[in-house]
Amino acid sequence: MVESEVSHSHPYVPRNLDLPGFVPLVLSESTIIGVYGLSALLIATLIWILSGLLTKKTKFNRFLMCWWTVSGFTHLLFDGYIVVSPEFYKDNTAFYFAEVWRVYCKCDSRYVIRDAGVLTVSVLSAFVAGPASFIALYAIATGKSYSYILQFATSLWQLCLVSVYFISTYLKKDNFASSPYHYYAYFIGANTCWIIIPTIITIWSWKKICAAFQLIQGQKKSKLG
Amino acid sequence: MVESEVSHSHPYVPRNLDLPGFVPLVLSESTIIGVYGLSALLIATLIWILSGLLTKKTKFNRFLMCWWTVSGFTHLLFDGYIVVSPEFYKDNTAFYFAEVWRVYCKCDSRYVIRDAGVLTVSVLSAFVAGPASFIALYAIATGKSYSYILQFATSLWQLCLVSVYFISTYLKKDNFASSPYHYYAYFIGANTCWIIIPTIITIWSWKKICAAFQLIQGQKKSKLG
Repeated sequence: MVESEVSHSHPYVPRNLDLPGFVPLVLSESTIIGVYGLSALLIATLIWILSGLLTKKTKFNRFLMCWWTVSGFTHLLFDGYIVVSPEFYKDNTAFYFAEVWRVYCKCDSRYVIRDAGVLTVSVLSAFVAGPASFIALYAIATGKSYSYILQFATSLWQLCLVSVYFISTYLKKDNFASSPYHYYAYFIGANTCWIIIPTIITIWSWKKICAAFQLIQGQKKSKLG
Repeated sequence: MVESEVSHSHPYVPRNLDLPGFVPLVLSESTIIGVYGLSALLIATLIWILSGLLTKKTKFNRFLMCWWTVSGFTHLLFDGYIVVSPEFYKDNTAFYFAEVWRVYCKCDSRYVIRDAGVLTVSVLSAFVAGPASFIALYAIATGKSYSYILQFATSLWQLCLVSVYFISTYLKKDNFASSPYHYYAYFIGANTCWIIIPTIITIWSWKKICAAFQLIQGQKKSKLG
C-alpha cells in the first residue's frame, strides 16, 4: 500500500465527515498550544521591554503595543494560513500552522469543510485586522494623531467579526466541537480574548475621542463667552 | 382542494428548491420597489425640511441626518422583519415586508432557506446598526461630542457586514439570483449604497477626529514652547 493512500480516521464532528487523505497530528496537542502560548508571551515580553526602553509610554499604552503585535501576528499568520491552505489536514510534514488548525478544528470542524461563513471571517481578519494591528502598534509608538481612531476601528472590526462568528454558529444550531473540553477551551476560551480586549479598547478610545471634542467645544464656548 | 394546500411554483434559484406553501407576489414588483423608494424619499425630504427649520446644521450634516433616518428604518424594519419571519414566503395577506423579501430573494435566495450567514448579517444590521443609526441622528441634531465617533462606528459596522455579505457570497461560488437584472439591480445596486455612503462617512469622521487630536497636540506643543 502506498503511504499517501493510507486512510486515517479523523477526530472531527460530524463523525461521518469524509476527509480523504487526512493525516493525524504529529505533535501533541499540548505542544501545539504551548508553542502558541510561549511565542505570544515571548513577543509580548519583547515589546514590553523595548517599549519601556525606547519610549515614555504609559503602562496601558505599552500593554496595547503588546496586544496589537500578538493580535497582528495571530491574524496574519493563522487566519492568513487557513485562507490559502484548503488541504491543511493532508499535510504530513508536521508544519506548525497545519498542526494548529488540525487542533482548532476539534472545536470547530467548519474550517476543515471550508465553510464560507468561517472563511469569510478569516479573510477579513487576516487581510484587514492583521495589517491594521501592526499600523496601530506603529501609531502608538510614534504618537500619531490617528492612533485612537485606528485602534477603535480595528477593535470594532474584530468585535463585528467575532459577533458574526458566534451568531452564525448559534443559528446553525449544530455542534461542531469534538468534545466539551475543546468547545470551552478553544471555541469559547480563545475567542473570548478577542471580545474582552477589543471591548476594553473600544470603550477606552471612544472616551478619549469624546474627551477631545468636549475640550475643543469647551474652548470654543469660553472664547465666545 | 383546500386553499392552503395549493402549490405555487417559486421564482428562486436553485430551481429545484422545495418551498411548500409558497405564495406568489400579490403586488407588482415595480409597486413594491416604488413604495420603498417613495417612502425613503418622503422621510428624507421631511428630515431635510425639519433640520433646515429647526437647526443651523450644514447641508452635509443635514444630508447625514436624512441618511441615518432612512438607514435606521431600513435596518430595523426590513432586516428586523426577516430575522423574526421564517415563513414570510407563505404570507398570503400582501403584507408589505413579506412582499419586499419575496422580491429581494429573487437576487439572493439564501433568505428563503434561512442561510445562517445572511441571517447573521441581518441580525447585526437590525439590532446594532438600526438603533445606532437613530442615535446618530439624535447626536447630530443635538451636537453631541460623540457624534463623529458614533457615525464612524456605525458606518464601519455597516462596511464590515457588507464585506461579510459579499465575500461569503463569492466564496460560496453559487448563483443565488433568478436573473442578471435582479443580480445587478438589487444584489449589487441596492447594497452598493451601503458601501458608498458608509465609506464617505468613515473617511470624513476619521479626518474630523484626527483634526481634533492634531489641534490638541498643537496646543500642547505651543504651551510647552
